[in-house]
Amino acid sequence: MMPSKEQKITELGEKELIKRLLKRSQNISFESPFFDNLTFKSLKDDAALINFGENYLVATTDLLTRSAHFPREMSYQQMGKKIVTVNVSDLAAMGASALGIIIAMAMPSDLTISNFDAIMDGILQACKQYNMALIGGDTNESDELTLSGTCLGMVSKNEVLMKSGAREGDVVAVTGPLGLAAAGFEVLFAGASELEDLDPEIKTRVIKNALEPEAQLEKGLKLSNSGAATSNTDITDGLLSEMGELIDSSGSSIGITFHEELLPIPPEVHIISQVLDKNPLNMALTYGEDFELLVTIQEEKFNQIKDGIELHKIGEVTSSGQIHMVDKEGKTKILAPRGYEHLKKSNF
Amino acid sequence: MMPSKEQKITELGEKELIKRLLKRSQNISFESPFFDNLTFKSLKDDAALINFGENYLVATTDLLTRSAHFPREMSYQQMGKKIVTVNVSDLAAMGASALGIIIAMAMPSDLTISNFDAIMDGILQACKQYNMALIGGDTNESDELTLSGTCLGMVSKNEVLMKSGAREGDVVAVTGPLGLAAAGFEVLFAGASELEDLDPEIKTRVIKNALEPEAQLEKGLKLSNSGAATSNTDITDGLLSEMGELIDSSGSSIGITFHEELLPIPPEVHIISQVLDKNPLNMALTYGEDFELLVTIQEEKFNQIKDGIELHKIGEVTSSGQIHMVDKEGKTKILAPRGYEHLKKSNF
Repeated sequence: MMPSKEQKITELGEKELIKRLLKRSQNISFESPFFDNLTFKSLKDDAALINFGENYLVATTDLLTRSAHFPREMSYQQMGKKIVTVNVSDLAAMGASALGIIIAMAMPSDLTISNFDAIMDGILQACKQYNMALIGGDTNESDELTLSGTCLGMVSKNEVLMKSGAREGDVVAVTGPLGLAAAGFEVLFAGASELEDLDPEIKTRVIKNALEPEAQLEKGLKLSNSGAATSNTDITDGLLSEMGELIDSSGSSIGITFHEELLPIPPEVHIISQVLDKNPLNMALTYGEDFELLVTIQEEKFNQIKDGIELHKIGEVTSSGQIHMVDKEGKTKILAPRGYEHLKKSNF
Repeated sequence: MMPSKEQKITELGEKELIKRLLKRSQNISFESPFFDNLTFKSLKDDAALINFGENYLVATTDLLTRSAHFPREMSYQQMGKKIVTVNVSDLAAMGASALGIIIAMAMPSDLTISNFDAIMDGILQACKQYNMALIGGDTNESDELTLSGTCLGMVSKNEVLMKSGAREGDVVAVTGPLGLAAAGFEVLFAGASELEDLDPEIKTRVIKNALEPEAQLEKGLKLSNSGAATSNTDITDGLLSEMGELIDSSGSSIGITFHEELLPIPPEVHIISQVLDKNPLNMALTYGEDFELLVTIQEEKFNQIKDGIELHKIGEVTSSGQIHMVDKEGKTKILAPRGYEHLKKSNF
């Protein structure tokens, strides 16, 4: 159904808005004095791909605002780190190397220089960590602290990973534990009295996962270099949502079946779920922010590459066009690709 | 003097903040599997330059917020157009071709889809005008409407224009009229009673200059292709401020002397100055937003290239380290490189 023009953007949700933003841009054709065939690929993917000879220049943007993305407990340094991480994670999704990032900042006029410097420290620390440069910047005034990053990377055309490409029979895997950031956010949102019985060490660890996530750039590179990955994306909006993206990208010609007991849900997530009376499965499936990768891998090559890359097999690619979960009792359920999405009123 | 850490960012101002943001990033060195010598040049310039064989990839970012950059009278379409224009103008300053732009948007949740579409229309119209693509996007929620753009372009290393490079004896020129956007903003800020005597056609024309400025991409390209330009920048923060930038970029080894009577101040600016009791010279020198280019050109080639490019000679490069204005009475005054700057409390 077409949305009415007077509807609010919240009724469409972020992913629909981005599609709306980019859909019409494909019709623009133009000539460049620098390239015979300057095409832009991959509007559905985590980053745009621009023809550069044997390689693609990879470009992606992410914007974070204080009210929507920075919990009260997040330090200025962590904010700086996070604007780099969320952008680099999109490069990891494409299996690309990072070149550098350009940061535009809007800041309240009463921000202290000390806090400005702390944001910068976080940005530069993250740049160092991901072996990339800060290549430009812009500062502006705004009541709301806003950090916008655009990350550039490169990837060989032979090795680029996209959301499309999975084939029936491929192994479905994730590159690390699921639900830790979710557990951290639940702890941050909980009242002190609810947390009395929680081991402080566990508390600190999961909060760090929520406030200082890391992009899996190295894992993405290893996957693209392996030649065995058929599709890939980063888990920012939750595992189910990203599974939905892989299925959508194939025009629903594939489906995914995964096994509840194979999900790498670490003990911390179970402990916090118990303390706060939450469902650990929900944390692993529908929260984002873990920034691990969801990847499909040629079945015959899986064993060979899994020694060099942290990979947890969770299921297999099917032809069902749907997401199926085999639960611990062996029953198969059809799941909707729900996940966290900004700008959308009702996620659940 | 070093600023105290507890000082507010407004006491430094935008240009100092950007320098602070970028200064430390130069110390990062890293290796890329794609380039032997991946250097980032030009932190003082309008855009960053990244080594790409015989060319530079040019990258620039600009962020606009509703409260700081969009007058009440600006339509959503004009906002979309402007985020492209301000970014493309930085490419024009480097003499580069535009490849494409990546837009990150933060929007209030009650923005209508119709207004969202209008922003997009403006973005896509501008992309078409500058022969470039919209190559990516991100949408987010924020109380303040914020548009962040990152523009990519290319320029041959032999032809790139920078702020540094002017030599004593070069002609100083601008590529078009000065003060029109300033006049437009003064009209927008004026009360209806003050404007009673103003020709409605003039009013409409200058307001359009304020709300729908155009980047001088073609002029920048002609200048870089000419081989005659020695330095170049776009006039976003006012002519004097940009002259100061050219002088700074040379380590104050050059100065600029310009002649008041040579400034291309169009009749509209004089008329509006009279109606609103403003100084037209001030509009031409210290307001930004005209987006014309300030360029220095080898004296012996100036006559040869000015047939193909709109160029108004306004003065010459000296060795004074200062900005001198020869006024209409023939008297020489030293002027400070003042101009409009966001985030700074006292511009004047």
